[in-house]
Amino acid sequence: MNHPAAKLSPREPLIERLRAILGDRVSTSSSVLEQHGRGESWHPVHKPDAVCFVQSTDEVAAIVKLCAETATPVIAFGTGTSLEGQVQAVQGGICIDLSQMNQVLEVSNEDMDCRVEAGVTRRQLNQYLHDTGLFFPIDPGADTSIGGMAATRASGTNAVRYGTMRENVLGLTVVTANGEIIKTGTRARKSAAGYDLTRLFVGSEGTLGVITELGLRLYGLTEAISAATVNFPDVRSAAEATIQTIQMGIPMARIEIVDSAYIKAINAYSKTDYPELDTLFLEFHGTRAGVAEQVQMFNEISQDFGATGFQWAEKEEDRNRLWRARHDAYYAGLAVYPGYRGYVTDICVPISRLADCIAETQADIAASGLFAPVIGHVGDGNFHATMFIDPDDDAMLAKALELDHRMVQRALDMGGTCTGEHGIGMGKLKHMRNEHGDGAVDVMKAIKTALDPQNIMNPGKIVDC
Amino acid sequence: MNHPAAKLSPREPLIERLRAILGDRVSTSSSVLEQHGRGESWHPVHKPDAVCFVQSTDEVAAIVKLCAETATPVIAFGTGTSLEGQVQAVQGGICIDLSQMNQVLEVSNEDMDCRVEAGVTRRQLNQYLHDTGLFFPIDPGADTSIGGMAATRASGTNAVRYGTMRENVLGLTVVTANGEIIKTGTRARKSAAGYDLTRLFVGSEGTLGVITELGLRLYGLTEAISAATVNFPDVRSAAEATIQTIQMGIPMARIEIVDSAYIKAINAYSKTDYPELDTLFLEFHGTRAGVAEQVQMFNEISQDFGATGFQWAEKEEDRNRLWRARHDAYYAGLAVYPGYRGYVTDICVPISRLADCIAETQADIAASGLFAPVIGHVGDGNFHATMFIDPDDDAMLAKALELDHRMVQRALDMGGTCTGEHGIGMGKLKHMRNEHGDGAVDVMKAIKTALDPQNIMNPGKIVDC
Repeated sequence: MNHPAAKLSPREPLIERLRAILGDRVSTSSSVLEQHGRGESWHPVHKPDAVCFVQSTDEVAAIVKLCAETATPVIAFGTGTSLEGQVQAVQGGICIDLSQMNQVLEVSNEDMDCRVEAGVTRRQLNQYLHDTGLFFPIDPGADTSIGGMAATRASGTNAVRYGTMRENVLGLTVVTANGEIIKTGTRARKSAAGYDLTRLFVGSEGTLGVITELGLRLYGLTEAISAATVNFPDVRSAAEATIQTIQMGIPMARIEIVDSAYIKAINAYSKTDYPELDTLFLEFHGTRAGVAEQVQMFNEISQDFGATGFQWAEKEEDRNRLWRARHDAYYAGLAVYPGYRGYVTDICVPISRLADCIAETQADIAASGLFAPVIGHVGDGNFHATMFIDPDDDAMLAKALELDHRMVQRALDMGGTCTGEHGIGMGKLKHMRNEHGDGAVDVMKAIKTALDPQNIMNPGKIVDC
Repeated sequence: MNHPAAKLSPREPLIERLRAILGDRVSTSSSVLEQHGRGESWHPVHKPDAVCFVQSTDEVAAIVKLCAETATPVIAFGTGTSLEGQVQAVQGGICIDLSQMNQVLEVSNEDMDCRVEAGVTRRQLNQYLHDTGLFFPIDPGADTSIGGMAATRASGTNAVRYGTMRENVLGLTVVTANGEIIKTGTRARKSAAGYDLTRLFVGSEGTLGVITELGLRLYGLTEAISAATVNFPDVRSAAEATIQTIQMGIPMARIEIVDSAYIKAINAYSKTDYPELDTLFLEFHGTRAGVAEQVQMFNEISQDFGATGFQWAEKEEDRNRLWRARHDAYYAGLAVYPGYRGYVTDICVPISRLADCIAETQADIAASGLFAPVIGHVGDGNFHATMFIDPDDDAMLAKALELDHRMVQRALDMGGTCTGEHGIGMGKLKHMRNEHGDGAVDVMKAIKTALDPQNIMNPGKIVDC
């Protein structure tokens, strides 16, 4: 009996050597390759040649060494929730899946810090911390891996008060392009000892090395936490109230805009009954007296902008329900047109320009005819119009690309950035020179070439422009 | 009449070309060279061949281009207050003095940010902001240039609440080693758009480029500000009270230790009458109710550690007097033994180890016989033992070097860093591999070589190890 010739990857000899190290933790099954060749975005799938499910930094180093010997691309993979094509293996290669490196290695209550393996997810970490009185605040919505969050400089709903991954990573263990293991940073809260390698690797999207462990800042749960929703006559009023709140210095823990189109989708998806109006989702952290004071100050500001219908959530379960509904907005949007995919924009502008930027964007969306509700971390000046598009409709994708392009240009014209938190990946490569200028991009490329001369670390991302 | 042959620098042809650009803003007078070849530390003077007093980024670019053509070292100079030999021209070369680039270019009240030239000093900026309700919090004591503060990743007394230069620089204009002008960052509060060049140049001590302009975060002056001093039975008790204050999450604006030896020196120098005991200098920022609450919480904690003798300073002039006395501590120490120079240590440890670290260090100092009072930003885990030494006494210097070395090792053993805020310069080069490991230092060197292949940007600093 004749079998058809097996279709072997030209990288099969390398894959055999990887199997010698990892045994059956190397997969070439087509479903595994498919799953690891895509994020949560509209970008096309690019499958790696193999996926390695690693369990230690040493394993990562061994894999990268073999890949370096054979000039094979290496792509790190956490939970696959990236939105700009960060995990796509555009030149094939070896995907390193870090999800089995999921140990919380150390928690110091006294220093309010911890050390985790890169595959630990943020919910897992916060569950682990549940009885300590501490929490890790960065919350991009999805239950992402901490390593992936660092690699993309993630932030999310709490960043307005607690900062982004940039501010909350104390140090890293990284496997560099030659398979060396290096450590960056210390457990000290500040240091002036040489180049800030921690901040260089944070946001480098796996193009300079693979993050395998992280030291993180933690925060004490405050005495009082109060969450609420409040409605506004339009998005501009909600944005204006936000601007004034930030300018007054009210230390909001969360202040999130959700437009009426998104509220409708959320009500349908999450079985909630929020008034279908433009809404701010809020959270206040502090002492009991401090929260009362913040609420009163916010209340006065919001009245000036026509706010109505405060709905409060004080108990943990009620707050969790509120934020779960907020976080499920993306899936709620997907459910409106089954089969559509999300194309999420991500601009961030100086806060003074936020109301104009959102209002102009909403007019632009209306003119485009796309279904693109608006949501965002308005306390930071960051918001998303999520365009839900039919993957088989090229004209619709073209329209979305054009709208995105106009949004980016609007943000840059206002002194902002093309991406507040989702990163560059493949999706925003085309904006890099426009945002940074040729000189700064050339500096980035020089760094990339110096640290990864063979261009094997997640090639085709960030600096291939 | 025979004149002796003028002693010309071999760099005279370059200096002539610089004169063609800058006219009499190029100096080779020996007093100017001497003044630009030293910081405020004990390190030996290394004079540059010439000092250029620049007035624009374009002038800096033109100078660096000429230096690149001739492979001549370039050293940026702000106020000359660095403490680790950052400005010493160890291979000679051209010093670029940025003090005439002292324009505040833009202030946005709405966005609470500003853009300044690198030679603007922090006091100048805060005077400029005086009527805006905004302030720039980073306060290393001396009236340093903002550019120099960024270059050394400075912090100081307010960092416990407001962060360091790392957290407060939004973006930079930098002249790179080939004389190109690049811009990093935007005015958006967060971004995930590529490598974090801003954070790479912050703390690079002029070894990767010359910072000529900076975008900075500003903060609103809070409704209430209250300062105080309070005495403790010993340094350990003061440190323990600090640890608990930080762990309780009290948002201290300043919490500074000053030991009894320093208090004595301050009383003599600043004509103050502080009780000559180990003391914490404090500042609380917030709403009126918030400050009252913080004060009450701090009070309860400090009683548990034997605190006595709170002295409050509420009015701006009283607070200024208090902090001026604190900031003049270094000069007060110098006045104890006229002719001595200061040798300032700068370790930073995780807060849980702070009390042990200070106590062990004090015992070490006592055994050494050196005059080395202790002061520090204890809320960050950062403190300085300032060793005052006779510059003509080699044995005393040797003893100081050994004490410093033991302090650094103690900090590293506790998970800390050899420098919290003063930087590496020449002085701490020898600790780089011990703190970071060979792998991370080699990554730093690869970045340096990529961005400055001729090694002309402040050679002999940070990575020459």
